[in-house]
Amino acid sequence: MALLPDLGTEIVIPVCAAIGIVFSLVQWFLVSRVKLSPERGGESPAKNGKNGYSDYLIEEEDGINDHGVVVKCAEIQSAISEGATSFLFTEYQYVGIFMIAFAILIFLFLGSVEGFSTKSQQCTFNKEKLCKPALATAIFSTVSFLLGAFTSVVSGFLGMKIATYANARTTLEARKGVGKAFITAFRSGAVMGFLLAANGLLVLYIAINIFKLYYGDDWEGLFEAITGYGLGGSSMALFGRVGGGIYTKAADVGADLVGKVERNIPEDDPRNPAVIADNVGDNVGDIAGMGSDLFGSYAESSCAALVVASISSFGMTHDFTAMCYPLLISSMGILVCLITTLFATDFFEIKAVKEIEPALKKQLIISTILMTVGIAIVTWTCLPSSFTIFNFGAQKVVKNWQLFLCVCVGLWAGLIIGFVTEYYTSNAYSPVQDVADSCRTGAATNVIFGLALGYKSVIIPIFAIAISIFVSFSFAAMYGIAVAALGMLSTIATGLAIDAYGPISDNAGGIAEMAGMSHRIRERTDALDAAGNTTAAIGKRYAVTFYLGFFTRLSECSFFKDLMLHLSFDSLNLFSGICHWIAALVSLALFGAFVSRASISTVDVLTPKVFIGLIVGAMLPYWFSAMTMKSVGSAALKMVEEVRRQFNTIPGLMEGHAKPDYATCVKISTDASIKEMIPPGALVMLTPLIVGIFFGVETLSGVLAGSLVSGVQIAISASNTGGAWDNAKKYIEAGASEHARTLGPKGSEPHKAAVIGDTIGDPLKDTSGPSLNILIKLMAVESLVFAPFFATHGGLLFKL
Amino acid sequence: MALLPDLGTEIVIPVCAAIGIVFSLVQWFLVSRVKLSPERGGESPAKNGKNGYSDYLIEEEDGINDHGVVVKCAEIQSAISEGATSFLFTEYQYVGIFMIAFAILIFLFLGSVEGFSTKSQQCTFNKEKLCKPALATAIFSTVSFLLGAFTSVVSGFLGMKIATYANARTTLEARKGVGKAFITAFRSGAVMGFLLAANGLLVLYIAINIFKLYYGDDWEGLFEAITGYGLGGSSMALFGRVGGGIYTKAADVGADLVGKVERNIPEDDPRNPAVIADNVGDNVGDIAGMGSDLFGSYAESSCAALVVASISSFGMTHDFTAMCYPLLISSMGILVCLITTLFATDFFEIKAVKEIEPALKKQLIISTILMTVGIAIVTWTCLPSSFTIFNFGAQKVVKNWQLFLCVCVGLWAGLIIGFVTEYYTSNAYSPVQDVADSCRTGAATNVIFGLALGYKSVIIPIFAIAISIFVSFSFAAMYGIAVAALGMLSTIATGLAIDAYGPISDNAGGIAEMAGMSHRIRERTDALDAAGNTTAAIGKRYAVTFYLGFFTRLSECSFFKDLMLHLSFDSLNLFSGICHWIAALVSLALFGAFVSRASISTVDVLTPKVFIGLIVGAMLPYWFSAMTMKSVGSAALKMVEEVRRQFNTIPGLMEGHAKPDYATCVKISTDASIKEMIPPGALVMLTPLIVGIFFGVETLSGVLAGSLVSGVQIAISASNTGGAWDNAKKYIEAGASEHARTLGPKGSEPHKAAVIGDTIGDPLKDTSGPSLNILIKLMAVESLVFAPFFATHGGLLFKL
Repeated sequence: MALLPDLGTEIVIPVCAAIGIVFSLVQWFLVSRVKLSPERGGESPAKNGKNGYSDYLIEEEDGINDHGVVVKCAEIQSAISEGATSFLFTEYQYVGIFMIAFAILIFLFLGSVEGFSTKSQQCTFNKEKLCKPALATAIFSTVSFLLGAFTSVVSGFLGMKIATYANARTTLEARKGVGKAFITAFRSGAVMGFLLAANGLLVLYIAINIFKLYYGDDWEGLFEAITGYGLGGSSMALFGRVGGGIYTKAADVGADLVGKVERNIPEDDPRNPAVIADNVGDNVGDIAGMGSDLFGSYAESSCAALVVASISSFGMTHDFTAMCYPLLISSMGILVCLITTLFATDFFEIKAVKEIEPALKKQLIISTILMTVGIAIVTWTCLPSSFTIFNFGAQKVVKNWQLFLCVCVGLWAGLIIGFVTEYYTSNAYSPVQDVADSCRTGAATNVIFGLALGYKSVIIPIFAIAISIFVSFSFAAMYGIAVAALGMLSTIATGLAIDAYGPISDNAGGIAEMAGMSHRIRERTDALDAAGNTTAAIGKRYAVTFYLGFFTRLSECSFFKDLMLHLSFDSLNLFSGICHWIAALVSLALFGAFVSRASISTVDVLTPKVFIGLIVGAMLPYWFSAMTMKSVGSAALKMVEEVRRQFNTIPGLMEGHAKPDYATCVKISTDASIKEMIPPGALVMLTPLIVGIFFGVETLSGVLAGSLVSGVQIAISASNTGGAWDNAKKYIEAGASEHARTLGPKGSEPHKAAVIGDTIGDPLKDTSGPSLNILIKLMAVESLVFAPFFATHGGLLFKL
Repeated sequence: MALLPDLGTEIVIPVCAAIGIVFSLVQWFLVSRVKLSPERGGESPAKNGKNGYSDYLIEEEDGINDHGVVVKCAEIQSAISEGATSFLFTEYQYVGIFMIAFAILIFLFLGSVEGFSTKSQQCTFNKEKLCKPALATAIFSTVSFLLGAFTSVVSGFLGMKIATYANARTTLEARKGVGKAFITAFRSGAVMGFLLAANGLLVLYIAINIFKLYYGDDWEGLFEAITGYGLGGSSMALFGRVGGGIYTKAADVGADLVGKVERNIPEDDPRNPAVIADNVGDNVGDIAGMGSDLFGSYAESSCAALVVASISSFGMTHDFTAMCYPLLISSMGILVCLITTLFATDFFEIKAVKEIEPALKKQLIISTILMTVGIAIVTWTCLPSSFTIFNFGAQKVVKNWQLFLCVCVGLWAGLIIGFVTEYYTSNAYSPVQDVADSCRTGAATNVIFGLALGYKSVIIPIFAIAISIFVSFSFAAMYGIAVAALGMLSTIATGLAIDAYGPISDNAGGIAEMAGMSHRIRERTDALDAAGNTTAAIGKRYAVTFYLGFFTRLSECSFFKDLMLHLSFDSLNLFSGICHWIAALVSLALFGAFVSRASISTVDVLTPKVFIGLIVGAMLPYWFSAMTMKSVGSAALKMVEEVRRQFNTIPGLMEGHAKPDYATCVKISTDASIKEMIPPGALVMLTPLIVGIFFGVETLSGVLAGSLVSGVQIAISASNTGGAWDNAKKYIEAGASEHARTLGPKGSEPHKAAVIGDTIGDPLKDTSGPSLNILIKLMAVESLVFAPFFATHGGLLFKL
């Protein structure tokens, strides 16, 4: 028996969730202290210097009115926020209809398993007991499905709101120094991370407790019904990721193709009509989409672990604490991430741009080390020293130290994969530098080298995945896989904080450019430099020091935009590797749970049913990628036409006299992405249903295994290829080394080749790559939920 | 019992093989009647017109001395032939050493299975009988391995010799008309096709009969030993394809990057030092490499079918005719292809360029229809009406009509996949036109659309593969798969003729350009046209008619070169789809044979051993592609440096006064490709050995299944993406439609974008894509040969 009594578990989990929520509210409060209204400065100018800040600001000192800039920032922020809100609401309307229809489908399909009978049935795994009827599972699955979808919506929406709340504040804080800007952006990321982690845990916990009122001792039925939560979260994530991914890339590519290429104006130039849509895209794609995605992973792996655990020995003996092991790991994760966050925001201070990247990496390392200790504590206090796990027809004895190793292997392999991704996509290392070098001979060699790099970057992650799957599978069968996934997901709050940090600071840069801040500051500093004035105030010194450091290198770029580029570095790339890793594990865990639930004992490749599933499954990621890439292309084309139209028909737009019609571009992106997300969404949602109904569970197992092993490779290679091209371009633009300077500057032939690579990489790394994660996870969780139906009524074609 | 007596089988097979060889010699003789020596014309000028031809030649009529051109063509041809011979000899030296080392390895590994004992052992599948010792299998496997390698060398080498013999002759014949040129090129292809098919059949047949002298009734041992033939053929094919692929693309990319891009001289311009190397590359890569590849497929699928058949009911009852069913199918194939060839060379005459493409397609269709009848004849005369097949531990009853359907499904699915490939890669259809259209917005959209097209083109072929695998698997287990592969391979002679036709006419175009033929002809025809002279002789009329047809469109291109481009159309693309299809089936058949031989009864994805194999196996094609793409890049870079050096250091080269040093470029390509083929080769050859020895047969099964399902998708998408880019470029260049003309002409921005796509596609479609076929087949056949060793001594890591 475990050390922690059941009552303790009942208290610990909600308390940890509450701590997470409170912590995130505190962070929000700290971010909100940066004021966006210029009035405040006007009200009490004598209070403590100027504008409510104790630090000096470059712009004010020069006598330039600060109000104008702040008002402009606030304006832009609210435009971005409105655009994002309007997109998400439109998306939720369509997805809402789909969700209701799908909920009805779940109810009908699962209810039909026993012909909508209300009588209790013999349990599947414990023949002596009576279990609740399939109709109950149908009802509760439907409820938990809707609950999962709703929680996902809340997670994504709040994330977006926080991000759009924080971006202009980050811009304003950047005037005071890199440290301030960093903390604002990072805190905002943390708000999202903690809210999402705590929210997901709390809703799941409450749902389990409420469902238990009905199910009582039938934990098998209870946790089967809970899987709907994973499906709901993941379905929402699909549309969030795909829709958001198409939105962000359509706006981005559309803005670039007309603005940068045809009209030769800089990125994020306020004259570009698609510029607001572009910034909205970052928030709905990279923030809301990713939030939904990670929430989905979290919900799915928890559900997979719970459903496997429900048929283990502690499921049978009703050891509630051991049963809640996955949730306790997540609870511990919230505490660990809280401490980790303090390292970034309070224990150390960022003083220079070059400290940012190590600080973010340190976050990952600190959380991993702390979490290892946390997992040990949870394992030895909550698990019996030995228990049995159901392993496809057999029972497997597992020791608690073995399960500890399973969780750790997931956690540490994730870290390794993250750093391998970083190695292949960061321009600090030779792979990206080689790609940049290949731009010398033109775009073609750049693309060839980039593709080769992406292919190559798959090798180590796959070995890491294989080893950790082998270890956790050998120790604790599918339960081992599920908790390995949770191991990585336990530090989700920190991961999300790092990941959200990127788009927030990217947006902040865009706002700076649009508000026209950079030019004034540049003039100001040029004058300052010429006069040899070294008696600047502290705030100014900060700004000028890091500005001058950059200015020599980035003489052609606008200041703030580039600062933000450097602030945002490539955290997304590092984390994208971890996302693929999580997706692979979660998908495998769900696959295992599906197989258990569908009562399949072997998935033999040597049977034709399974083999055709395998090869068709391996094809699905290609089909899906083709669809999403085409979708981005079509949506971008519509955007290009609109932007061209505006440049051609609005007089004085290019000269900056007239304001472009931002709203139409936002609307076009919204409509196009909603329309274009339907075919890929349908592919993912319908495949398990069609295969399960017509070909049965064996073929469906093959499809899941095939799409998993093929999809994870394409996802990793696509993301890394895209990331490498992106950073190869930045490498040339930054010109930080002797080598980089021979390739640049901006506008040189190698740079043009690098820009082509970057544009190709956009849909790969921001649409196809991340969406593939959802493809493999969602098909697995959908199969899991419908498993009883497929096992009873599926395989129509083979019954003929 | 079958209708055909055993004696009949013993006669029919060698007779068919002999017919094939005689037919190919006849074709060779017909090609050789086109004389390359100018003397002949000088000897008997009065005999029948001029220069030994009865047709008038444009150049002669105009009084221009024909001798110069013929001498030049002969010179160029011998340079190409010498370069190709020297490359192949260098390659064979290195590969020879490897082959001997590997042969020793085979002997040691297989001999060690029973500790080099010379005593007979109990048979695996028929416990009552005694079988020959493992040592005998070791010796005979080694012998058949060397035999397979040698036959592959002969096939590739003869193919190359014929192709280099034919290319200048095609050039010269082109002066007389498109029909003559077509027939010369096609006959040469047929020489290769028939020689290869007949040779492969004959050697295999003889080997079986010789081995039978020792093995007697132990057919199980006999056909196990014969599998070495497949491994030998396939190992050679690996190096042929990879080495040849790197050679051809390094020379091509190197020549283009300096010649076309930097120096702005046309393709195949004789001033380009890499031009001979480029043409050599076509012969060693597309001809010798592909010849070895298809021979390997043929040997492998025959071996797979034979080894599975040896443990079937007719293997047990020693029904020799039924046992030889795979060889009889191939014998019938030779006869069918012979008739089919006559349709192209004798029954119909090609009179215009636009008739060529349909004629080649008709070849495929005719051979498929005739072969269907042929298969029916073979099936009903050679097979008992019902027999049993060993199906992973169980016995399966198969009817002869079911086996007929298995072979047919292979044959017809291959045809369908060929035409789907054609649809996605030919510029006559919308997919390629869309890709061409995307060049409007630059290279980036071109690449995105091309990649999406490649992904999309996987869908139908994979469904076709899945359906035919399901049908043949359900009917006759792995034997069904093996004969399905043979179904497609039975028409290999026609397939090869079509496939070899492409590079031969491509080379012919190159020779025309290098010999400077085009310019003279163009002037001549311009004058002719201006004078309104319509009283031209028949030969001239032909030439002028089709020339003028093109001239209006291709005004900027040199005439002959472009004619040849159109002659060569995209037969390679159409056939590449079929090659992938064959590779998938062959690999699966070998996989099945391996599993049978290693006595595995299930390959359960739900065991960790198999799953890690599956995911690592799915990664191997990415690793391999990364290697080959990088190899092409490195080899091309060396070529670029040498070509630049020559342009910079040889005075008068650009002006055409000095001759470039072709030989050095040939040497660089040779050395680079030999060196660069080692790492990918090692990956393929070592993986099964390492996995088998350390992880055992279950993990190896997973690796084979994973690499098969993942590799076939990458191969198809890479080939089709490359093919589509190639044809999108040609579409813009040809400007045949209103739409195409808005994108062109050569040198326009869309055309430049299309050229970038084409260059990216080169390594994809000519190196990675085709090499992947070998990867999946070779790993399977190697596993099959070493299966007894792995089953006995393998899996060291899990034995610890």
